[in-house]
Amino acid sequence: MFEKHIYANRRAQLKKSLGSGILLFLGNEESPMNYKDNAYHFRQDSTFLYYFGIKEPALAAVIDLDGDETILFGDEMSIDDIVWMGRQKTLTEKASDAAIERVLPAKELHQYISSYITKKQKVHYLPPYRAENKTKISSWFGLSVSEISNRASIDLIKAVVAQRSVKSAEEIVQLDLAASLSADMHQVVMQAARPGMYEREIVAKIHQAAMASGGQLAYPAILTVHGQILHNHYYGNQLQEGQMVLNDSGLETELGYAGDLTRTFPVGRQFTPVQKDIYEIVLQAYTDAKDLLAPGIRYLDVHLTACRTLTQGLKDIGLMRGTVEDAVNAGAHAMFFQCGTGHMMGLDVHDMEDLGEQYVGYTDQLIKNTTQFGLKSLRLGKELQPGYVLTVEPGIYIIPELIDQWKADNRFKEYINYERLEQFREFTGIRIEDDFLITENNSRMLGKHLSLTVSEIETIRSSV
Amino acid sequence: MFEKHIYANRRAQLKKSLGSGILLFLGNEESPMNYKDNAYHFRQDSTFLYYFGIKEPALAAVIDLDGDETILFGDEMSIDDIVWMGRQKTLTEKASDAAIERVLPAKELHQYISSYITKKQKVHYLPPYRAENKTKISSWFGLSVSEISNRASIDLIKAVVAQRSVKSAEEIVQLDLAASLSADMHQVVMQAARPGMYEREIVAKIHQAAMASGGQLAYPAILTVHGQILHNHYYGNQLQEGQMVLNDSGLETELGYAGDLTRTFPVGRQFTPVQKDIYEIVLQAYTDAKDLLAPGIRYLDVHLTACRTLTQGLKDIGLMRGTVEDAVNAGAHAMFFQCGTGHMMGLDVHDMEDLGEQYVGYTDQLIKNTTQFGLKSLRLGKELQPGYVLTVEPGIYIIPELIDQWKADNRFKEYINYERLEQFREFTGIRIEDDFLITENNSRMLGKHLSLTVSEIETIRSSV
Ligand SMILES: [Mn+2]
Ligand SMILES: [Mn+2]
Repeated sequence: MFEKHIYANRRAQLKKSLGSGILLFLGNEESPMNYKDNAYHFRQDSTFLYYFGIKEPALAAVIDLDGDETILFGDEMSIDDIVWMGRQKTLTEKASDAAIERVLPAKELHQYISSYITKKQKVHYLPPYRAENKTKISSWFGLSVSEISNRASIDLIKAVVAQRSVKSAEEIVQLDLAASLSADMHQVVMQAARPGMYEREIVAKIHQAAMASGGQLAYPAILTVHGQILHNHYYGNQLQEGQMVLNDSGLETELGYAGDLTRTFPVGRQFTPVQKDIYEIVLQAYTDAKDLLAPGIRYLDVHLTACRTLTQGLKDIGLMRGTVEDAVNAGAHAMFFQCGTGHMMGLDVHDMEDLGEQYVGYTDQLIKNTTQFGLKSLRLGKELQPGYVLTVEPGIYIIPELIDQWKADNRFKEYINYERLEQFREFTGIRIEDDFLITENNSRMLGKHLSLTVSEIETIRSSV
Repeated sequence: MFEKHIYANRRAQLKKSLGSGILLFLGNEESPMNYKDNAYHFRQDSTFLYYFGIKEPALAAVIDLDGDETILFGDEMSIDDIVWMGRQKTLTEKASDAAIERVLPAKELHQYISSYITKKQKVHYLPPYRAENKTKISSWFGLSVSEISNRASIDLIKAVVAQRSVKSAEEIVQLDLAASLSADMHQVVMQAARPGMYEREIVAKIHQAAMASGGQLAYPAILTVHGQILHNHYYGNQLQEGQMVLNDSGLETELGYAGDLTRTFPVGRQFTPVQKDIYEIVLQAYTDAKDLLAPGIRYLDVHLTACRTLTQGLKDIGLMRGTVEDAVNAGAHAMFFQCGTGHMMGLDVHDMEDLGEQYVGYTDQLIKNTTQFGLKSLRLGKELQPGYVLTVEPGIYIIPELIDQWKADNRFKEYINYERLEQFREFTGIRIEDDFLITENNSRMLGKHLSLTVSEIETIRSSV
């Protein structure tokens, strides 16, 4: 945990931006794997961590906007709990570490909330994403599960997003650490891969690094020779000379802050000429995008810059044609780049994704264009501010099923050279990703440098 | 997956033991970590795996007892799904691999069930343990969440338990594999531990082994220098000369079968004399218990035998006193052995724990004594049958908080030498655990031999 005044200050700042009523925060419960008592590793809710810092299941907290009170709801351990799980700090001690003075038993929360509902006072809650918490909200507020999200407090969402979006000094230390630990792990992977290994053997090294660091993986590792599959979690392929390995993985620090890095490297010592050509295009897009990062710039424009650089590069090698500007406006580049250039990052790898993309990545003035393939997957569009932390992760992905579908529809044939593209069907994909902090004047990369250029990567692969 | 006829045969056998109506099986959904799309690794429900074999989220299946139909409910991938997750077999192909002929869209399940409820035909379901499935059952059957388990089908529970309890030849192959892979991993751990290492660095090796095997951990690893904490998931201690490491961990095969092994070894090259004395007591209890395993023997008696051996040994070193039989009947040994000697194992490490201990571990005739501390944690009491797979895992655990509580109450002072026990407060704990199959005449250990005796373990620790 951070020092206790940090949590007190965060809560005080939150209170200032809201009116009357109470703020309800539900921590996460244990998440059962195949029966109740065989649970996945516990992950506390990020907003709960942010304001209360306690990593323990089945807690809730309330901030009274009209009084001056924060209450933690939860139960102390019984002797049976101690036998099975060991003596820990008492809940009262943990509460005190977060500057919370009052602890009540978990079962009193329902009654506490009901009294406010009865008095017709506003009870603000955030949209729950875990089914256990949906069930609680549904029962306490007398709502069907489908109504829950609509009744979440937009005022509270906006206040939390505003606060969590701007990272404080102690958070930046954590995010630098997460990025550096992640870079170390990527370096290990880049040195360990050999033709003949299975993907899962490399994923095993990623898990080892995560556990040894005292944290966890921030998200399930994407480690694949099929880099075109954007969220590939299958690890059964054997690495073959001539292929590339795409490694998108990051560690979460003990305090819960994420790193999110991607590198793509050859299974052999060198990229093939075609792989190298396309790698250079992605790297140029990465460079053009990151060089734009600064307060006042819309991330939508960072994204469009990356798209234009990719399109120009694809034009240079004959896979696209026509005017770059027109191709990108039409969305033709999404044949090769189906997703967004980046996203906010913090306590969540896609920071605050549970609170709603319209609040985290967009504004009331900049509402997302939701129809265009590609652009609809851009999680962040709005103007950047100092303290924002985000990723830059352009890529080029050749997806045979997408070629077949678009080609059959004659889609964007003025911009896409389908004939030449057929020769690239089995190319797979390349992504490059780093994490950045928006500073007062521009930006800086978080963590330490991780081999990035073709020559840096080939140097490592040739020396193994 | 197994061959398709295996799933067809399992379902045919289940149908025979039940009357009329339909059987509803809910597969698991993705389990969100910190927002909906950042999920833990997917674990299918074990009963769903047993009858349908498909490891994919958000499926359900229905067996019509009156007709001759099995229907899988689920959705085929969209082009967006393929872009993000890659082309897989279609759901229809997966269904066919499990000998299921009919696939309907997920949204039709509610209507399908409603038609049976309307016709007042029996819809059998198993007690759900994940909140997502509780919500579905609650809504489809018009039940409050607290009523759901009471309305689960006892006939179906009993039929599934009877069938899953007796392992078939192809399951035993899997369980042997799980135990052998787990033994390999334990051997690596026993060779890798060094004074000065952190527990998490060793847990990292366990995770690495699990991932590299193509499976997962069957349960969160217990790897600790505080072996007295039965379900310890804190990995922050540094190993010190003179301490012991307790490693309770097991791998799950790709098809979902568990291994569950425990070894306790010295951080240094040798056990201390006191550690060795107590290790020998636990090993004797392990030997006496496993030697009893055979069809027709109640596991309750296996447990009580282990308890008596532990008590005799503790008497020999002056920690207990009085008549062994009386001490065990009174439950005094539970100061040192607070849990059960073992549990059923299969697709779940505690097999079918979601279906209810009264059905899995006990019978209508043998109902668990729920009040006595220690005995109340025995998950398995009933008579053993050929094909049962279970663990034997006696231990001795010194829990300071328990000493303080019982001593203050003068509890069992005729059997416990509290004065001498004070000298053992910091002893921590020892457990030894292997997995066994009940055969036609007696039993055999699953998997390969893993260093067990003091001399075997010290040989390994001295050669590192
Ligand atoms: Mn990312
Ligand atoms: Mn066990």
